[in-house]
This record gives sequence, structure tokens and C-alpha cells, in this order.
Amino acid sequence: MSQSSDAARVYSRNQAERFRHELYEMLRIPSLSGDPAYASEVRRMAEWLATHLRNLGIEHVAIMPTAGHPVVYGEWLGAGPDKPTVLVYGHYDVVPASMEDGWNTPPFEPVEQDGKIYARGVTDDKGQLFIHVKALESYLKTTGRAPVNVKFLIEGEEEITSPNLRAFLEAHLDQLKADVCVISDSSMRTIEEPAITHSLRGITYIEVEVYGPQDDLHSGFFGGAVHNPALALVEILANLYNPDNTIAVPGFYDDVVPLTADERDMIAKTDLTEEQFKHATGIPALWGDRQYTIRERVSARPTLEINGLGSGWSGPGPKTIIPARALARISCRLVGKQNPHKIYQQLKDYIESLAPPTVRVEVRLLTTGEPALIPYNIPEMQAAVRAYEQAWGATPIFTRGGGSIPVVADFYTLMKMPVVMMGYGLDSDGLHGSNEHFSIEMFHRGIETAIVYLEELANSTVG
Amino acid sequence: MSQSSDAARVYSRNQAERFRHELYEMLRIPSLSGDPAYASEVRRMAEWLATHLRNLGIEHVAIMPTAGHPVVYGEWLGAGPDKPTVLVYGHYDVVPASMEDGWNTPPFEPVEQDGKIYARGVTDDKGQLFIHVKALESYLKTTGRAPVNVKFLIEGEEEITSPNLRAFLEAHLDQLKADVCVISDSSMRTIEEPAITHSLRGITYIEVEVYGPQDDLHSGFFGGAVHNPALALVEILANLYNPDNTIAVPGFYDDVVPLTADERDMIAKTDLTEEQFKHATGIPALWGDRQYTIRERVSARPTLEINGLGSGWSGPGPKTIIPARALARISCRLVGKQNPHKIYQQLKDYIESLAPPTVRVEVRLLTTGEPALIPYNIPEMQAAVRAYEQAWGATPIFTRGGGSIPVVADFYTLMKMPVVMMGYGLDSDGLHGSNEHFSIEMFHRGIETAIVYLEELANSTVG
Repeated sequence: MSQSSDAARVYSRNQAERFRHELYEMLRIPSLSGDPAYASEVRRMAEWLATHLRNLGIEHVAIMPTAGHPVVYGEWLGAGPDKPTVLVYGHYDVVPASMEDGWNTPPFEPVEQDGKIYARGVTDDKGQLFIHVKALESYLKTTGRAPVNVKFLIEGEEEITSPNLRAFLEAHLDQLKADVCVISDSSMRTIEEPAITHSLRGITYIEVEVYGPQDDLHSGFFGGAVHNPALALVEILANLYNPDNTIAVPGFYDDVVPLTADERDMIAKTDLTEEQFKHATGIPALWGDRQYTIRERVSARPTLEINGLGSGWSGPGPKTIIPARALARISCRLVGKQNPHKIYQQLKDYIESLAPPTVRVEVRLLTTGEPALIPYNIPEMQAAVRAYEQAWGATPIFTRGGGSIPVVADFYTLMKMPVVMMGYGLDSDGLHGSNEHFSIEMFHRGIETAIVYLEELANSTVG
Repeated sequence: MSQSSDAARVYSRNQAERFRHELYEMLRIPSLSGDPAYASEVRRMAEWLATHLRNLGIEHVAIMPTAGHPVVYGEWLGAGPDKPTVLVYGHYDVVPASMEDGWNTPPFEPVEQDGKIYARGVTDDKGQLFIHVKALESYLKTTGRAPVNVKFLIEGEEEITSPNLRAFLEAHLDQLKADVCVISDSSMRTIEEPAITHSLRGITYIEVEVYGPQDDLHSGFFGGAVHNPALALVEILANLYNPDNTIAVPGFYDDVVPLTADERDMIAKTDLTEEQFKHATGIPALWGDRQYTIRERVSARPTLEINGLGSGWSGPGPKTIIPARALARISCRLVGKQNPHKIYQQLKDYIESLAPPTVRVEVRLLTTGEPALIPYNIPEMQAAVRAYEQAWGATPIFTRGGGSIPVVADFYTLMKMPVVMMGYGLDSDGLHGSNEHFSIEMFHRGIETAIVYLEELANSTVG
């Protein structure tokens, strides 16, 4: 173990409590990217981050505009041009959270309990992106230099599927150029089983709206002769799945690349039992396509989920209306060669084919993201394996992530860089749900692993 | 035409503008009975009414408590015990309204436009109940006495289906005793076709909630192995109707009394064409059970409507969750001998039979109301016919109302009084929807008709 990463690791341990309290400042800012009412909080978050990076001695720190929320950029190139450059990608935005959703503590006031930090965004992704900031700080404040060059690209629209990031990358290809991109925005099954994600699912997110009468109608005066839009919607949506829980949209599976026996073996290493999955989710019984294992279903197979339904009256007390409209939000996770735009067209055609003449149905595309599959036998990945072995104390496995980080496909195909997803969360962290949390131990182990990873990169044949 | 009703009618015409401005004071109070946040506004509405009645010389005015919102009571018994007594029933509560629902003007700030008054509650029921207050005032301020005794029973929970009114009636049977109950809370097709409603549908209002995972889950990490509660809900609800648009709940139609040929002839007098119905509602095509005419479907046949759907995320921006829960509000309109509690049990049994083992389904009863059918050849009804002929200028038809006023069945069966429903609204008034309105002319014609009705009652063999 080299001198410089040793010193940095010791420093990170000594500063652990301060690092956490700095993180809490971030967590207190409700940087909800999806709600225009929170735009100023998103801005405040970007400013906090920029100031923080600047104070660490990171250079060319800038809040760079996009058509939406800004990107925070910063770089430390002191290792010199003969050393590899790492682009750290993260996101400072979060999804909504409120006490009504079942939080035990206010989601934007971090609380330490039982070795965990509870707060919206703590694992997704503020705590995880901060790991890399603190890793670089640990070098700069000890030996004064890091073993590789580091660039930070921290965006504010990941939770709304990064609608403006591709254009941003295209406009700043030179500035963002690096040998490898590292992202910590994923998770492992248990602390003993660190995982490097080498695959992500793509996404097609749509909205289906059924329009009936011009206005809400009194159900007593019109009920019986009007096709209730909420009824029409449920009648349409009930056709999305076949009885065997496969997706009924024609052509949906056409571009799914079948899993090889080797791939299935790799995936089986992280499979879950029914009992484990029921315990983790609280569901009474498993569901899904029984031709595939649980882990295959949630990571290597495409899905279709209703993310929201809204129609008529769901406030307190009864209200006897025929609603004028009914809305569903639906998203598909995509794998293999599935093209998000082709899937959108298939969904739209199928839903429109189900629409009865008694209502009007609109299908709208909200957002898309490409799937990504990156080989794991490359030096950038193997350096990460060694970093986990030294700093985490276990050999990581390579896994497929079920989620979607649309920018990963862009880094890989547009910017020609391998992407190494070193997630320091746990599958059970509750991200996007209530009581999101992050293990304190894993936060600090993550910083040490990130420290060692920079050194392993410098020592490998990267770049 | 007698002296006393003549003078009262002239007075009502001279005071027309003042009457409207008094009504506007009522309309400015957002007396939403279904939302606990508006409890103080409901109270303020009751106080306004009580003060108003007291100022007119009405006696024993009281805000009488119930387990929910209070009843406003008042009486004028100056006609003496040998004259009939009329119980005027109305309600001072309203359903919710907000600009977001498509109102062109603020719903709680009345606006006069094109001969109509726009405001929440103007036709349902503040404007209509006020007609009777102003009719009595027109007698008291001219001849000093009315031809019959009048009692007012104005409740504040009609829009939440009067959960506490039956107990109130039982507790005050003597005080509320009358020879006939008159209610103005219904409507006619056009101003030339006044209608007396002699039948109302009953109601069973339920809530269906599907529970899946303990918390909302990230759809990327769990999608594919969890039965999405929103999907399970739509799969259940899609089975509520048969392909011929009859209701699929076993036993649902058992206690519907078939319409006789005479009854179908009477209903046919107010039938609508498809074009008229499409124009009134804005729907692209009619829907329903084709064995029945449009008017039969919306008034004499039972219905099942989804009044609301709620699950997951319907706010701005995409959110990729598997929702923990999905909710539907469903109500049935009932006719003939359908028993609301039996219908609830049938609904519950059927929905539970459709529930898959992958989720947990709860069916909850929110409220019920009995259907009511009152003969129209009785003197109390015929006096109303004469009142319309004199003051409205047209002979009314007897119609079946599709809505539910649960207390009507109680007045009729518990209190043994005929109930005469003289609705002064138009079917197109938009009650419960956006831009609810009431014709100014019909408001004033209604007051004159109500004036003459009191006299015609005094001259008939009522009581």
C-alpha cells in the first residue's frame, strides 16, 4: 500500500464526523428537480456544492447552465497529462418526500439512528457523490496531490431522467474528456458483497390521459349514459399484461437480447429467495414472469409499471362525480437492444388500439433513456476490483442494475469512456420511498475505497 | 288569483336585486362539508342563515347540533293549527371547487353573466333553498302572514350524504312534524318544461384500497417481481362491467323493480336525443345499457361509477416508483327495492373474489342512502302542478331524478309525509362540476311559484 493513499485514508477516518456534518448541510436542501416550485432550492444546492468544491482547492468550479437545472463542474488536473483522468458523475437533485408518505422523521432533516443516516437523497445520490469529493479532499489535504486527474460533473436533473444532459455533453466534449467515468449511484445486497454495476436498464416513460365529458359531471344525473373516463382507463390498462405476467404490448420483447447461460450464472450469484424478497418489500406473494429468477426479473428483463393513477376525487369525503379525465403514468425498463422510442411507439399504438370510441385517449412521451451494457474485463473495472479488495475487504461481484441512469449510455457511446459504477448503497436503503437511509459505515468505507481506486487507476494501463 | 299571493309576488319582483345580493353573501362562504379544513366556514354559513331567518321574523331559529355539521331550524306558525304546515328542506353545504378544475371565475365569488349567476352552490342548493326563504319573506313583508305554516330544516351535510340527519329526524319528530315536505334541489330540462321529481335513486358509496409493498419502491430495483398495486387495482376494476355495459356484480340487479309500460311512457316525455346528450356533456359517443333509453339509464336504472382513482405519483414530472397503495372511490345509484347495504355486501364479495394473492385488498363502506318513489296523484303534488301553471306559465311533468337525496326516503317512510320536489334548476347548470350556474330568471320565477304554492296548499285538502 502506497504512502499517499495511506495518509489520505487516515485523514478520512479522522475527519469522519465533519464529513457527515457537511453532508447534512446538503441533505437539508430540498433540491426537488421535478417540481417547479422548488427551483430556487435546486439552485441553492448547486451553489452550495460549487462553494464547497472551490473551498477544497478544486479549480474552474462553475455552475454551468442547461435548458433546465444547472450542472456543477470542477476539476483538479494536478497529476499531470501523463496520468489518467477520472470523470466523477453524480447528481445533486432528489425526488419528492413528505411525512404523509410514511416518513418517521422529516425527510429534509437528517437523523442518525442505529448506524444509519435518514434523509431524502442520502443514498441517492448526495451521500454517494460526496464520497468522491471527500476522497479527493483527503489527498489534497495530506500529500497535496492526487494520483490521477479528477473532473466533477454533478447534474441536477437525474431524477427527471436528465432531459438536458446529452446536449450538455455534446457542447462540452473537450472539457469533459476523461479516461474513465466513475459513478456511485447504485447499491449492493449486503455490506459483505460489494458490487460493481456493469449494466443498466433503459427507460420509456409515458403518460396516458383519457378524456370523457367536458367537465366533471354529477354521477346522479349523467351516470348510466356516459363512459366514465376512469372506467375506460382501467379497462385499457387491464390489457397491458397477459395472464402469465408477461407484457402484452405487441413487439415489446422483439429486441430483448436473450441471456446466455454464463450471464444467467453471473446473475444467479446475487439471486434472492422468495422469503428475502418478501421480507425486503413487505409484499404477501411474489409476482412476475416465472420463466426468470427474481434477480433476472428485477435487473435483466424489461418491465412495465404503472407509476401513478389520478382521476376525480381522492380527497376527504365522498364526491359523486363522473370525472372529466383520468390519468396514468407508466414507465418501462428496457434491456438489450430495446430502443426507447420504438417502445414508445409500440405502447402508443397498442393503447390507442384499445381506446373505445366513447372517450378520447392521448398517449404522451415524457422521457426516454437508452439501456447500457459495459464489459467487465477491462482495466478500469479491474482496478475497481482491487480497490474494493484493499479498502472494503471483499472482492466485488459484477451485477446488472435494474434502474436507469440515462447518462451512462451517453458516456459510453457518445464519449467513448468506460463507466465504472461503484455503488456504495444497500439495496434496502429505501431510495425513492419513505425513510431513505444510508449506512454510516458504508459512507466512510466508500470514501476509503474511492481513495484507493484513484491510486489503482494511476497504476493500471488506463488511458 | 288571491290578493295575498298577488301582493307577495309584486313585492318579490320589486326586491329582486336585493334578493340576489343577499344570495351572493351566502355564495361567498365556502361551506365545504366534506373537508375538515373548512369546518369553520360551514359553521359561518349556518350562522349567516340563522341570522338571516331571525331578521325576517321567523321564530325559534336555532343552530341545532348533530354529530357532524349543524342543522339550521326556524318556523313561522302564524297561519294557525287549522292550516297545513309545510316543512321546507334544503342544504347549505357545497362540494369542493377550485380554479384548477376549469372554472372561468373564482367559484366562491358570484358573477352575473348572460342572465346567469356563476358560483359553487348557486343551484345546489343555496339559490334553491333561498327561494323558499324569500317566498315566505314576500308574504310576511306585505300581508304580514303566509297562507300556511312553514318550518325550515336546512342541513349542512347533504353533499356528504347526510350521515347524521336520520338520527336528527328521529330525535325531533314532533318539532319537525308537517303535512308535506317541499324540496327544491333538482332541475328541469328547459325553462318551458318545469318538472316535479317524484323519484330519487339511492346510493352505496365505497372505497377500494389495494395494498402492495410496505412503502413505495424504486421501480428499477423491484419492478418485475412485485405486483404493482395500481395494476392490481385496474385489473380488478376492469371486471366491474360486462361487455354490454351492464354491471357484472353478481346479484346486483336482483331487486330492481322492472319499469312498467306506463312508467316508460312517462319517462319518455323527457327523453333526450343522442345529439342533445352529447351536446350537454361534450362526450364523443354515448355509452351504457342499450336496452334502455338515455333518460331511463340516467334516472330509472341503477349505475356504478368510479368517482376517483389515486395511486403513486400524479404531480409534475416523472417519478419511477411502484406505489405502495392504490385507491378507488366507487358509488352505485340504486332504484326500486335495491337495498344499499345488500349492494355493499355484493360489491365487497365480488371485489374480494377478484383480489389476487399478490396484494391485499380492502373494501370499505363510506355511505348509503335508500331510493324513494312517491305517488304523484296526491293533493300535495297536484297543488304544485297548479302553482307552476299560474306562476311559471307551464304545466309541469313528473320525472324521476337520477340523483340521491337520502333524506327524502326518511321523510317519506319515517315521517310519513309526502315529499314534493320542485326543482328550479336546469339539467345543464353544471352542479358538482366547474362553472356551476343558476338562471337569474328561474331564481325569480321560482320565488313566485313558491309563493303561489303556499296558497294552493292552503286551498287544497292537505293535512
